[in-house]
Amino acid sequence: MGKVNTAPVGGTRDFLPLDVLRRDYVIGAIERVYQGYGFEPLETPTLERLDTLLGKYGEEGDQLIFRVLRRGQELRRVLDDAPSENRLADAGLRYDLTVPLARVVAEYRHRLPRIFKRYQIQPVYRADRPAKGRYREFYQCDADVVGSASQTVEAEVIGAVAQILGELGFSGPDAFAMRLNHRGVLHGLMEVAGVPAALEGSALVAIDKLDKVGLEGVRRELDARGLDEGAATTLLGTMAEAPSGANEAVLAWLARLLEPSEAGRRGVAELRTVVDYAAYGPAAARLRVDPYLARGLSYYTGPIFEVEFPGFSGSGGGGGRYDNLIGMFGGQNVPACGFSLGLERIILLMEERGLFPERLAGQPQVLVTRGDEGTTGASLALAQQLRAGGLRVDLYPDADGYGKQFKYAVGRGIRYAMLLGARELEAGVVAAKDLESGAQEDVPTQDIVAWLSERVC
Amino acid sequence: MGKVNTAPVGGTRDFLPLDVLRRDYVIGAIERVYQGYGFEPLETPTLERLDTLLGKYGEEGDQLIFRVLRRGQELRRVLDDAPSENRLADAGLRYDLTVPLARVVAEYRHRLPRIFKRYQIQPVYRADRPAKGRYREFYQCDADVVGSASQTVEAEVIGAVAQILGELGFSGPDAFAMRLNHRGVLHGLMEVAGVPAALEGSALVAIDKLDKVGLEGVRRELDARGLDEGAATTLLGTMAEAPSGANEAVLAWLARLLEPSEAGRRGVAELRTVVDYAAYGPAAARLRVDPYLARGLSYYTGPIFEVEFPGFSGSGGGGGRYDNLIGMFGGQNVPACGFSLGLERIILLMEERGLFPERLAGQPQVLVTRGDEGTTGASLALAQQLRAGGLRVDLYPDADGYGKQFKYAVGRGIRYAMLLGARELEAGVVAAKDLESGAQEDVPTQDIVAWLSERVC
Repeated sequence: MGKVNTAPVGGTRDFLPLDVLRRDYVIGAIERVYQGYGFEPLETPTLERLDTLLGKYGEEGDQLIFRVLRRGQELRRVLDDAPSENRLADAGLRYDLTVPLARVVAEYRHRLPRIFKRYQIQPVYRADRPAKGRYREFYQCDADVVGSASQTVEAEVIGAVAQILGELGFSGPDAFAMRLNHRGVLHGLMEVAGVPAALEGSALVAIDKLDKVGLEGVRRELDARGLDEGAATTLLGTMAEAPSGANEAVLAWLARLLEPSEAGRRGVAELRTVVDYAAYGPAAARLRVDPYLARGLSYYTGPIFEVEFPGFSGSGGGGGRYDNLIGMFGGQNVPACGFSLGLERIILLMEERGLFPERLAGQPQVLVTRGDEGTTGASLALAQQLRAGGLRVDLYPDADGYGKQFKYAVGRGIRYAMLLGARELEAGVVAAKDLESGAQEDVPTQDIVAWLSERVC
Repeated sequence: MGKVNTAPVGGTRDFLPLDVLRRDYVIGAIERVYQGYGFEPLETPTLERLDTLLGKYGEEGDQLIFRVLRRGQELRRVLDDAPSENRLADAGLRYDLTVPLARVVAEYRHRLPRIFKRYQIQPVYRADRPAKGRYREFYQCDADVVGSASQTVEAEVIGAVAQILGELGFSGPDAFAMRLNHRGVLHGLMEVAGVPAALEGSALVAIDKLDKVGLEGVRRELDARGLDEGAATTLLGTMAEAPSGANEAVLAWLARLLEPSEAGRRGVAELRTVVDYAAYGPAAARLRVDPYLARGLSYYTGPIFEVEFPGFSGSGGGGGRYDNLIGMFGGQNVPACGFSLGLERIILLMEERGLFPERLAGQPQVLVTRGDEGTTGASLALAQQLRAGGLRVDLYPDADGYGKQFKYAVGRGIRYAMLLGARELEAGVVAAKDLESGAQEDVPTQDIVAWLSERVC
């Protein structure tokens, strides 16, 4: 038998214990805060009907869906007939968490609260070419409010995200910002610059690259996309003169500029409301109104937002209001607003910035060593006593030398080793060894839980 | 557009908020106890290379693997050539948690502790025909110790499982039992009954049905499987005379009966050690040595065990020692022992027996109502104050009548509603309404966190 390939499938990852505990630490904070904001959890299957998925993510998206092969007779029938990518498959893997939410809202409408606040933290799958930081299986952490058009929803969603990042240690004034804009403002900017409606989407894509390519780069993009020079110059002119200071100044500038546009006026008013409402929550000092934030997805209909980490290209997550999407399976429009946090990026940044605690909840705290056969029962009983006291305890199973047992403990990040030999049993003590300092002391068996509880973390 | 099918794919399930919270409650207990016993978490990808999966679960298993269709050029190449089930796919969905563990041990041998205690709680996928209680996506909760042949491992694994069930409320003396046997004992029973080695596996399958079909049923099975009448009669004779009382009596009977069999003697000795060791832990009163427990899987090599819930057919989970399996990808044998808890069955039983707490962690506790536009800011600030006090708070977003807002709260299981109108703001109070009793009282704003914390659960 040749060498077997035991690496995970390209673009997927095995998470070894410390990886899982780190991810659990982050996911735990996300869940705690989302729940604190009144969101409830939803989980949907990995497998979705292929026709649920197809046509929802654009043509490129359709190609990125992992398809699950039909089986048995059904497969044979297709193979005998005219096999094609879609006919060979009857299901696909979850591609995002928004389409499943829309499906769930349509399916269980009458069992859900009229305002459905759900969070969902599950892996999604993309048949993309794997690359650094681009995975085929990765987690999304979404929170959405379905059923209300109120701007308190935006304020709460933004607040929850700011709260999560704060709890994870992104705490300095420059640790992160929440960029905020409105689809109506973008539309208004196009209108007043004289961009034809047919070119608006195209122009937005160009504008969205401002951070990466600068004003001149945007001009070239606009030109390439067929926008006439007059409109491009007007558009770039307003972009150049946009104030970048306090939100109030930006909003006042927008209000003047977009006075002629109805969509623009509505956008500015809603943005102002969001800023006012968010001022009561943890996002207050993080909000930065940015009239040229466009965000790729075309389904947004109102406010849009994005987390920005200074010095880090790409966003840490984003969201917005999308009032026409949730109804895709139900035929009826339902207002909705949500946010998707980028777990993988947050973890990457936390590693770079050293934001993980040195010890993670879940790691073993104590090793009960194993002496000779005569004291194995006592070791088992001690492990039980420590566990009843709330400690996380590993029991070394083999009758190896203590040196080997200590080395194992240190390798697992365990600082305290408990030794129980004939001498200790007779004296009613446990020999407790601090593997960091090397110090060892006899602790009466009845005091050992308290002794350890004072020391472990 | 016709009616869209928004039900989940057959055999899979959507978990609505209360479902998720219940599952999290159970999974939380499982994780806490596994960690308390020194196990660390592992997570592996949903997608595995097809050749990692094929041939590991028998011929039937190969048919039950969900295959993922190749994409793009690779797919076209196969379609142009000779498309077949295996050639059309390049990956499959995780089928269990043991093969991924074996792959991980082979891949990361040098990064793992020499004794690797891992738990893994993830969904697995079976392309089975859906039926009541039989799902195509369901969770497995495995804990395994890789790298030690010591019987303390069996005792700890059994202890952890008994501890989990106890914490979940399976607490009466008849709430559950842990059946225990040993492959060596089974082999010894076959030997002393004169069952030919070639028929041993077949005879074990028949014996495993004792609970369902009784002794006469087993005789018919043995006959059908070609066992001669003499051996069958001897085997059934020992089965009929097996004591069913205290473990010590069963072990003594086995020791006498299996004296001529080397494998039998080793099995009895190891069983005795497991019983002795387990006596120090929470499984002590649960253990029931059952010499005819066979468990289907042929890969076990030592002690085997199974959770039994009286009055419930089918097991709640099981496990055992399997010393030749983990090396399947590495070429080298590694001793291992583990347990797989059946999450779906445990949840079913907990529902039947009413073991879930009335309120689950994670549910919202308080609704901050929304008054008129003038008090929205105050409502947002109050929600923030309550959250900072550790409460889970929903803020009603729309300016609806209070009746509608209260109804929404009750529908979400929220008992307390906070009202903030002009009167309350002026008086510096919050009108706190108990939606269960209907009582309402003014609470000074600075005392409201304490007032609620005393009341919510």
